[in-house]
Amino acid sequence: MSKGHKIAAAVDLKTANEPRPPGSSRRERKASETRVRLFRCALKLFAERGFQNVTVEDITEAADVGKGTFFNYFDTKDHVLGVMVEIQLGKVAHAAELAAEGKKTIHYVLHKLALALAEEPGRSPGLARAVISSFLASESVRAIIGRNMCEGQKTIAAVVAVGQQRGEIEPLLDSVKVALQLQQCKMGTVLLWSLHEKPALRALIEDSFQQFWKSIAVAGKK
Amino acid sequence: MSKGHKIAAAVDLKTANEPRPPGSSRRERKASETRVRLFRCALKLFAERGFQNVTVEDITEAADVGKGTFFNYFDTKDHVLGVMVEIQLGKVAHAAELAAEGKKTIHYVLHKLALALAEEPGRSPGLARAVISSFLASESVRAIIGRNMCEGQKTIAAVVAVGQQRGEIEPLLDSVKVALQLQQCKMGTVLLWSLHEKPALRALIEDSFQQFWKSIAVAGKK
Repeated sequence: MSKGHKIAAAVDLKTANEPRPPGSSRRERKASETRVRLFRCALKLFAERGFQNVTVEDITEAADVGKGTFFNYFDTKDHVLGVMVEIQLGKVAHAAELAAEGKKTIHYVLHKLALALAEEPGRSPGLARAVISSFLASESVRAIIGRNMCEGQKTIAAVVAVGQQRGEIEPLLDSVKVALQLQQCKMGTVLLWSLHEKPALRALIEDSFQQFWKSIAVAGKK
Repeated sequence: MSKGHKIAAAVDLKTANEPRPPGSSRRERKASETRVRLFRCALKLFAERGFQNVTVEDITEAADVGKGTFFNYFDTKDHVLGVMVEIQLGKVAHAAELAAEGKKTIHYVLHKLALALAEEPGRSPGLARAVISSFLASESVRAIIGRNMCEGQKTIAAVVAVGQQRGEIEPLLDSVKVALQLQQCKMGTVLLWSLHEKPALRALIEDSFQQFWKSIAVAGKK
């Protein structure tokens, strides 16, 4: 199973549920490109005008495709944000693979994950605000996000458990709670940054991760 | 200077900038009651319909006062949320007083503060979502919130510094960064709770505060 298929299978997107005809890799690739183009154009518009003020027509116009094309890829405007979640879940899955390989410390794996997760919403404060707003505004977006944050939490908990087995993370901690706290820590950092717009998000994530690590590490483990 | 005056002086609200005629305490009290009633009614409506979908008229109707009355207390609908910030800053100021008194440990003071700060937005997930959305949506609200979060951060940093002087908190930590991380941690917890709606916010804040404390405490200090 390719990585792309694994990621697609984890999310609630129209294309993910459709059977793919055999030997259609070129068509598939083109479809995937169109989908990503629609996603990028949509994000840009959400950041500029706010999620609520962008129509499907605005998105298809910006992406230079017919309006009908949009609905080949997404059930609703809300589902566009599912792609963001796909990208984020892909990063979490990659962290789990790294942890399983055993070549890197769990400190390295989680640190890299924290920085990677902030990349997508951190492209601009306006975008981060638009994305968080849309999570808050729509029940159907919330349902998608909620399911996928839970999925992400479970995978991160598994990474934490590996860290406990290897003697890096305090063995008595509840790995599921630790995973939730990592998510909370990251979301809070992105939220406050998107309000203040300063300083650089990367430095803030760096600080808050190191502080977080101190609270879970076995004494003396970096 | 009464506590009420101190709180009002710290925020950007119309009434806070107006000189108060001498001997008008009854009138003042009534004005303050009307202001709080408008605030409570507004919050209820924001939680039900979302900040963007509530008009000043909706608020004055719910509070059973004339539309003009609203503008005696608030410049715009955005400024209603200044009252929320007032309440939150009042809690931070109270924590600073407790710390200065020296009768309680700084662990006690910050723990109590973390729980108290989550009370206001934590009345319902819908309310928390409406409040965070309004922070994100409007530039003027963001300016008010930004100023006051910075104010709160400075005051919390002073409490952390007291904890460092007393040997409770690691002396090498940057107290301003620690204060920001406490705010991030709390905001992230409220945000994720408002999306998931489960379990109880108090238990989540409790967990995340204890984890946070472990990352700043001198080893062995509870």
